[in-house]
Amino acid sequence: MVPSSESPNNTELLERFREGQRTALARAISLVENTRPGFEDVLHAIHSDLGRATRVGITGPPGAGKSTLTTELANRFRARDERVGIVAVDPSSPFTGGALLGDRIRMNSLSTDPGIFIRSMATRGSLGGLATTSQEVADLLDAFGFDRVILETVGVGQSELDIAEGADTTVVVLVPESGDSIQAMKAGLMEVADVFVINKADRPGADRLARELEVMLHMRLGETQPAAAGHHGVSLRSVGRAARNRAQEAADESGGWAIPVLKSVANTGEGLDELVQTLDRHAVYLEVSGELSQRRHRRFIERTRAAVDRELKRLAWKVGSGEEILADALPELESGRESPYSVAARIVRELGVRPEANEGR
Amino acid sequence: MVPSSESPNNTELLERFREGQRTALARAISLVENTRPGFEDVLHAIHSDLGRATRVGITGPPGAGKSTLTTELANRFRARDERVGIVAVDPSSPFTGGALLGDRIRMNSLSTDPGIFIRSMATRGSLGGLATTSQEVADLLDAFGFDRVILETVGVGQSELDIAEGADTTVVVLVPESGDSIQAMKAGLMEVADVFVINKADRPGADRLARELEVMLHMRLGETQPAAAGHHGVSLRSVGRAARNRAQEAADESGGWAIPVLKSVANTGEGLDELVQTLDRHAVYLEVSGELSQRRHRRFIERTRAAVDRELKRLAWKVGSGEEILADALPELESGRESPYSVAARIVRELGVRPEANEGR
Repeated sequence: MVPSSESPNNTELLERFREGQRTALARAISLVENTRPGFEDVLHAIHSDLGRATRVGITGPPGAGKSTLTTELANRFRARDERVGIVAVDPSSPFTGGALLGDRIRMNSLSTDPGIFIRSMATRGSLGGLATTSQEVADLLDAFGFDRVILETVGVGQSELDIAEGADTTVVVLVPESGDSIQAMKAGLMEVADVFVINKADRPGADRLARELEVMLHMRLGETQPAAAGHHGVSLRSVGRAARNRAQEAADESGGWAIPVLKSVANTGEGLDELVQTLDRHAVYLEVSGELSQRRHRRFIERTRAAVDRELKRLAWKVGSGEEILADALPELESGRESPYSVAARIVRELGVRPEANEGR
Repeated sequence: MVPSSESPNNTELLERFREGQRTALARAISLVENTRPGFEDVLHAIHSDLGRATRVGITGPPGAGKSTLTTELANRFRARDERVGIVAVDPSSPFTGGALLGDRIRMNSLSTDPGIFIRSMATRGSLGGLATTSQEVADLLDAFGFDRVILETVGVGQSELDIAEGADTTVVVLVPESGDSIQAMKAGLMEVADVFVINKADRPGADRLARELEVMLHMRLGETQPAAAGHHGVSLRSVGRAARNRAQEAADESGGWAIPVLKSVANTGEGLDELVQTLDRHAVYLEVSGELSQRRHRRFIERTRAAVDRELKRLAWKVGSGEEILADALPELESGRESPYSVAARIVRELGVRPEANEGR
């Protein structure tokens, strides 16, 4: 936890990391993913290299085709010569092995490309811990020099909120059948999405779902969405000056980003070009509106909080005598002579925290 | 956090709680849900009254009909004169207001019954915190004297793992359409489910999904499931001695609980009686196998951990100078002169934790 004293081991790792050696990146990721000793030294050391990558979060229910969409997006970014890093936090992802054969073959075509780096993360352990660590893995990819970092995560709900906070742009992927439960999910979806994509849109129900989503988006704004019309059919070849101006106008008009609802068939590539254009447009919006630096700030704050909480847990349970006290107390917890709260109070007391000392300052 | 010094306020609240006043229960729940000062005193005080209620978790994707199923289950428990407490942690739940009208009317019929208590919980804030607090709300319902506590939670994934840990029996509700994504979800589902229910089983695909689930359950066991055949068509009117023996036999034979796959149409009540019988059977299994007391132990441990972590966070961010240090450090984080990890180290240092003192003991 003391970033000033890098171990010789990590110094060498960092050197090779900065030289752009993929094996060093892989080792750094393992270090962070498993929160092995010294992992925070590495994250500390690379902090000043952050902020170059554009981070895109892809989330949605299992079976929505997120991995195919991720692959197709990656291909399109590669075609523009962007280097793409992918973090998949998804038990259903082909990246993590829970895949259908076809998907896995599609992925493999990516993994031979030196401009692509794919890392899947297991979903074991506490979700909070996982979400944080996956963000820090994204930091590594950013610092390593990838232009684009894609975070693929399963589900739509509270867990995705955390993950969405780490992305610059969050794409929520649905399928026509999601219509059934859309009413249900609306609060969570609205908070997370910068862009909606209805994938597998060749199936029945896609148009209906698109309309439902648009109605919900209107309702959220409380009135008509001035920029909504302009968002469909905009065709940008690259993020040039015109696009910048247009995004500026859109932001000015609506006072924010009007969340577009796109349709795609990721298997055939249909709608993918429009998605890429939308992502470009959102990137411009983030910059001109000042939201990008706000999101960066929020990210720094979240990282710091997570690091503090992680270290306090370590002190209580690994360094301190928390485990021992708890094990000894089990009979009393069972009999009702103690409660989890009286045992917890003892563990915290034993830890010797002196908050009063700080209060007095 | 010091459970020995109950405030006079809480003493009166606890008195009325123990007299069985519903307004006191409601106030205690609000206290816990919002983690207001003194909430742990209340939880400490009721700890010795825990363990009488049977806790059933109902989880599954949005739109699976969990709320209808919960309502129908509650009606059946009421018919046997059990008192039922419901905690709904679900943005899609009619209990929390995201409802279709029909569902809401159905719920309302419950809420006029004095033998039923329904509490919905918002899904704001960190998931970890929420999952813990919802468990502690379930503790309150248990201590208050409900025979049955139902925890309804949305989604199937890592977040549900936490919540499932708090239930004695976890029911995973799917719909025939879930088949598409079942392959994807299997790891998570298998870990969570004690019972599968395919709801809306009058729609096409129910039998296919049931077969798929059963194949997956077989694969998990690595061989044939000896007790599986016996689990279908068992008809118990009540949990009597015969049932107890049968569950004992089932546990002995299979060395565990063979997860049944049931079908239901909650709207019409079809399959609900079988679900109730299965829950009874699982309750007996938990007791005779010793798993019930193991689950209780795990719950005590989790509560203690959560209380310690919560208190350490409070000390760092509310009592200590964490917020102040972090706010002051933002320019340095931005410029790259500091990292979240060096700032976190400072915050922990300022907190005055003395883990070395404990290590030496």
